[in-house]
Formats: sequence, C-alpha cells, structure tokens
Amino acid sequence: MTAEIITIGDEILIGQTVDTNSTFIAKEFNKIGLAVNRISSISDNKTDILDKLYNSINYSDIVLVTGGLGPTNDDITKNTILEFFDDILITDKNVLSKIKYLWKKFIKQPLLQVNIDQSLVPSKATIFVNKKGSAPGMWLTKNNTTFIFLPGVPFEMKHIMKDYVLPKIIKEFNLPTILHKTILTYGLGESSIAERITDWENNLPNNLNLAYLPSLGRVKLRISTKGNDFDLLNGIVNSYVDTLLPLINDIFVGFEEDNSIQELIANNLIKSKLTLSVAESCSGGKISDDLVSIPGASKYFNGSIICYSTKSKIDVLGVNPEIILTESVVSSKVVEDMALKVKKIFKSDYGLATTGNAGPSKGDSEKEIGTVYIGISTPHETYSYKYSFGNSRERVTRKTVNKSFELLLKELLKN
Amino acid sequence: MTAEIITIGDEILIGQTVDTNSTFIAKEFNKIGLAVNRISSISDNKTDILDKLYNSINYSDIVLVTGGLGPTNDDITKNTILEFFDDILITDKNVLSKIKYLWKKFIKQPLLQVNIDQSLVPSKATIFVNKKGSAPGMWLTKNNTTFIFLPGVPFEMKHIMKDYVLPKIIKEFNLPTILHKTILTYGLGESSIAERITDWENNLPNNLNLAYLPSLGRVKLRISTKGNDFDLLNGIVNSYVDTLLPLINDIFVGFEEDNSIQELIANNLIKSKLTLSVAESCSGGKISDDLVSIPGASKYFNGSIICYSTKSKIDVLGVNPEIILTESVVSSKVVEDMALKVKKIFKSDYGLATTGNAGPSKGDSEKEIGTVYIGISTPHETYSYKYSFGNSRERVTRKTVNKSFELLLKELLKN
Repeated sequence: MTAEIITIGDEILIGQTVDTNSTFIAKEFNKIGLAVNRISSISDNKTDILDKLYNSINYSDIVLVTGGLGPTNDDITKNTILEFFDDILITDKNVLSKIKYLWKKFIKQPLLQVNIDQSLVPSKATIFVNKKGSAPGMWLTKNNTTFIFLPGVPFEMKHIMKDYVLPKIIKEFNLPTILHKTILTYGLGESSIAERITDWENNLPNNLNLAYLPSLGRVKLRISTKGNDFDLLNGIVNSYVDTLLPLINDIFVGFEEDNSIQELIANNLIKSKLTLSVAESCSGGKISDDLVSIPGASKYFNGSIICYSTKSKIDVLGVNPEIILTESVVSSKVVEDMALKVKKIFKSDYGLATTGNAGPSKGDSEKEIGTVYIGISTPHETYSYKYSFGNSRERVTRKTVNKSFELLLKELLKN
Repeated sequence: MTAEIITIGDEILIGQTVDTNSTFIAKEFNKIGLAVNRISSISDNKTDILDKLYNSINYSDIVLVTGGLGPTNDDITKNTILEFFDDILITDKNVLSKIKYLWKKFIKQPLLQVNIDQSLVPSKATIFVNKKGSAPGMWLTKNNTTFIFLPGVPFEMKHIMKDYVLPKIIKEFNLPTILHKTILTYGLGESSIAERITDWENNLPNNLNLAYLPSLGRVKLRISTKGNDFDLLNGIVNSYVDTLLPLINDIFVGFEEDNSIQELIANNLIKSKLTLSVAESCSGGKISDDLVSIPGASKYFNGSIICYSTKSKIDVLGVNPEIILTESVVSSKVVEDMALKVKKIFKSDYGLATTGNAGPSKGDSEKEIGTVYIGISTPHETYSYKYSFGNSRERVTRKTVNKSFELLLKELLKN
C-alpha cells in the first residue's frame, strides 16, 4: 500500500504559503502504517489537476488531495473532480444543515448562495461533513485507487482527517506497522558521527534504515523499519539502539518519538516539581513561545522577560548597569546576571538567559555579529557559554534557541 | 519558461520536516519571472529519483533539486546524477580547498575521507562552491532541460541560490516579469468579500488573476499577472486596486508585498518615533517573537513580559490582585491593567496585552476555552476586546496573535 499527497493552490507555487498540510498528513499516514511515496504541489488549473490525477492512478493506492474547495471563483477542484470521475453534483442534506448551523451560530454573516452551494457534492462520493467549515471531505475510487479530497484550511483538514479519513483507511485496508525511532545528538557533525558508528551501521539488517538529519548544531539519527508485528519490530529496533547508545553517550541527549527537546525538558521539570523562567534578548521570545506551545507549560514555566533593549535589561530585569558599561551588554557577566535576576523575579528554580548580536547591524554592543552568550542559573550555581553563530539573523536566533534547550536539558539530566 | 522544484529526502515524506526550502525557492524564482509549475518531494531512493528526473525532462525547462548531497550513506543523489547524465566523478580543486578551509577555521573537527569526497563532482557539471558547507551546487543540462542540484541544508541552499543560481538563470534566459499584489483584509469571510466585489472581479481582464487566501480571521486578496514590461503591468494592477479599495475600505488594513502586518506596524512606529511593549499570557511569546523577527525591532520594541502564570501577573507585572479575584484572570479589566502596566514598566508609548484560556484544559480561570481578551494602552486611553477563538490550542494562540496585530495596526492608523 502506497499513498501520495497532492496540494492544490498557487500560493504554494509562488512561495507565499509553506505547505504544512502535507507534513501533518504524512506524519499521520506514517503512524497508521501508510507509507507516503510522493508529495506534490500543483496549480489551481484544470489541466494540471487532471494530468496529476490520471498520473496518480498508476502510482499510488491512496491519493489524498487538499485545497481548491473554497466558495470563490479561484477554487476549481470540485468541477474538475466531476470530469475525472464522470459524475454529477447533488445536494448533501447533512452538509447543508451543518452549513446553516455554522453560519447561524459562529460565522454570523449572511448565508450566501455560494455558501449553500458548498453542500453540492459528487453523487458517487462518500461525504465527510466538515464540522469547522463549509467544504466537506470526499472519498471516491477509480480503477482501484482511492481518492480523498479535503479542504486546504489546516484546522478543517486536520479535523476531517482525524475524525473520518484515518479511521476509514484503517478499517478498509490491512496496513503494516511503520516504526521510526529518532535519536537526538548535539555537538558533533554528521560525518564524524558516521565515522564513529561505521561498524555499527554496517551491521544493521537490510530492513532497518538509518538516516542522518543535520540541523544547526544538532544531528538526528533516525532508524526506520516496516513490518506486521509492532512488538517484534520494536524489540529489534531497541536492541540496535542499545548497542548504539554507548558509542554516542557524550553527544546523546534523548529520543524524539513524538517528543521534542522542549517536551523532554517539560517532562523533567514537571517530574521534579521544579520551575523555570527565561530572560530573552537576541532570541526575542522564541524560547518562551516554544515552551508555551506544549500544553501544561504552566506547571513549570513561570514566565519570561523579553528585554530586547539595553535599557530594559537595566530598568525591568535589574541588571547592574556597571557590568554593562565595563563588560558590554553582550558578555558572560551580563547573561549570568540576567539568568540570576529572572530566576529571582519569577521566584523560579532555574533561570535561562540569552544575549547576543543577531545582526544584520550591530546593536548596543561592539561584539561581532553572531556572538551569543547563553546563561543558566540553577538552584546552586550560575554559569554561561559563548558561541559564534554566523551572520544570518534567522540562523543566529534559531541556533540560540536550540543551544539553550540543549544546555538546559543537559543541566537537568545531571540530577 | 517553466520551472519545477524537487526535494529529495524521506524526512519530508514521513512528516518529520516541513519543506520550507521549496517555499524559499518558489518565491525567489517568482521574483525573477520564473513560474513554478510543480513542487515534488520524493524519497532517498535511486529508482524514484531517476523516474522523477526522466519525467521532468518533458515537463519543465528548469528543474531545481535539493537534498541528498550529504556525506553519509543515506545520501545517494550524486551517484544517481552520474547515471542520469552518463558521467564520471572528478575532483574539483576549488571545492576541495574551500572544504579544507572550512574545517580548519570553523568546523574544528577532523577532516575525514567522506568530507574530502564531497569535492568529487560530475565532470560535465558547472560547479558552485558552497561557502557555508561541503556539498557544492551543480548545474547540468540534458535534452535542453537545465538541472540544478543544491544541498538541502537551508542556509547553504539559500547562499548558493542567491550568489550563483539566480544570477546565472537571469543571465542565460530571457525571463518575463511576474507581478503579485496582495491586499490584507480583516473581519469579513471570503464568500462575503467575493459577493461584495463580484462586479469588480467580473471586470478583471483575462491576464489578471484574483485569488482569495483565507486564514484565521483574515483574508488576503492576491492579484497576479505576467508580462514583459514591469511599469506597464504595475500600472494596470494599480488601476484595478484603486477601484477595489473603495469597496473594501472597512476591512482593508494594508498591502503585503514583501511587507507582513508586523512590518506595517514597525514602519508606522519607527516613522512616528513611538515605542511598544507587550504583556503576553496565552500568546506565550509569539507576538514578541514575530516583532523581533524583523531587523531593526530595537528602534520601537522595548520588550515584553511573558506572564504565563497568574502569580507572575501579580508579582512581575504588578496587576492588582483584587481585580483578578473579583473579575477572573481572563477578563477585560485584567488585560487592560496588563497593557497599562507593561507600558509603564518599559516606559513605552503603547502597551499591548493578551490573556485567555488556550486549552486544552482550563487554567486559573473558569472562562470557556478559547476565550481571549486583548488589551491596548495608548498614550491617551486603554481599552480591550473579548473574543471566542474555538477549542484548538494552536489556533487560539495564532488567532490571538493575528487579532492583536490587527487591533494594534488599526489603532496606529487612527493618527
């Protein structure tokens, strides 16, 4: 069984929108044992859509298409479906009553004919009523290939996927288990890791695949396999992981299954009933945002001060202005004072702080662009490290966030 | 002239990585007049890569491929290229000396044979030396189709694109101008906008395309056209925009050319020499992060307090605990006090504040999940609005951020 994902919409082809829908769908398909062999983005153009659909019949067992189902003139997917499946439109009463309900209860704008027309669906389709919008999901088959059409608005697509599409695929097809285990490492390049684990990698059986995923100071090692028996597969993967870990114990920081490094930090702090607060300068709120994105953050995250200006480091955070004068605002003494002060202000157990020059121009410090200090204040000590993260603003801030989480997790794992 | 983008790598097909490379490339191609007709992600698998390359010969004039050029065993793009172009590997001395330099100066880890082997390139290729990594870019042709291969690490890919690929495409091909103008609206659904501007839309000439891009409380209207004379095209688009604006003046907030709403806010504040600070609860740092992502934010953004816990709203921000007791921490009085206090603490002209229940469980307030208050404190007054943003945590925070920027921009535009 293979699947492919097609997104329809010029906004992706002109670079206006990032295709996060396909990422979500691919991940969900993988979880239920459905391998995605191709993801494509094509134009809101009848010929392109038809070409792609005909091409997919021979390529995939399941074809999931998102986008182009809106009520405006630029959305042409539904009419194209009619031609492809040689079908006609009929009114779906459930969809129509849901649209009337949504408009009355939430939208509170006039119900127009184009909104009512969203309840017209191909007569051959199995229909999934959209509880969060007007365009329903549709399931059709042609020459033994299953075609699923979903609206492109992410939260509508996600709801229909989870409530209808995934359960129906599991029910109708006999799917294998796909297993991925991802190991997070920090501090060594991919080629050096590869050299170090050559013997281990050469001994991997054919049905275990190893991938190296390098990204800004960290390398993920992903082991993947596929089969019918989850427990058996899991046992095999774990036995190879057990022999790998001693080879990389200096750079290993944890597993990413569905766990990101923020989740590992969150779990650790919640388990130890400890709290954290953050003083962010060059990272500008990204660390806090990443922490808060995990439900339950209030259990360990007390809050942050984004002290972007030098003045606010003094006025709001209470950093000693003399240190700033003598050492520069981008310095180890300042970042350590920031970590200490933010810990005290929020009455937390741990304080984390960043200060640096992200560029493109130098701010209130003469330190070279890309220079970043990260400070950690624990219940027992306060320390910091200096980094040179290059001259791209975006990269400097992302690297600062990654490295901050790495340092913090390493500190927490000491206990 | 048409172009397509291919990304190679299982990490996209299993949903582990979002394909932001294609978004960047598509945007840059559009700027130089090169229309992208298809974006595909395929597996690190020789058969799939070859199938795709052969298919692309008949489909596109320029094929840009990223990924699969790393030094580890899972990267097989280079060997596949050799087969496709019937070529052999030779050492490129410039690439080799750049690798030696990078390893000595920045990487500071042993230079391994696999790193040296990155200087082996197809003999028929034009080579672009990678200044930020070991895998060079490569430009080859087959049957009049140009194939460009770039590393998948985003900052390496971006550097080779900007320094070599885009200038070479401009030099070698005679490209038209592609023009997009995007109008930002807030507060009305896409179908209601479409009904209101029906006559205007029906009068658009055939070579002007209109697209509706709805997203969490806002709708973007994008007008696109293509031709040879930039000034002529720009004049035509602007004349249609001029007749559109009076029809949507109540929902129009600005243009997004390369300008996001944060940039419109930044430009407005910088021009008026006014400053802003933010108190974020349920938005958890996202507003600050979006503000700081724009270079020059220090000119108007003084900083923020992320007061995620009720305790920190009192201890750090100084919100009156009596208001919290009598009104609940999610209330108009609290958010207004937050906006006022953060304005005073940072000595800013404007204060912006958010408080709400993002879910999935209720926090320190009994207010329904999805309830959000946004407060604004100006030099003259402090006010707030209440919203119901549904029950998805991610959507609630994103809508809070969007709505906050909308309210702030509307406030700034009053002057």
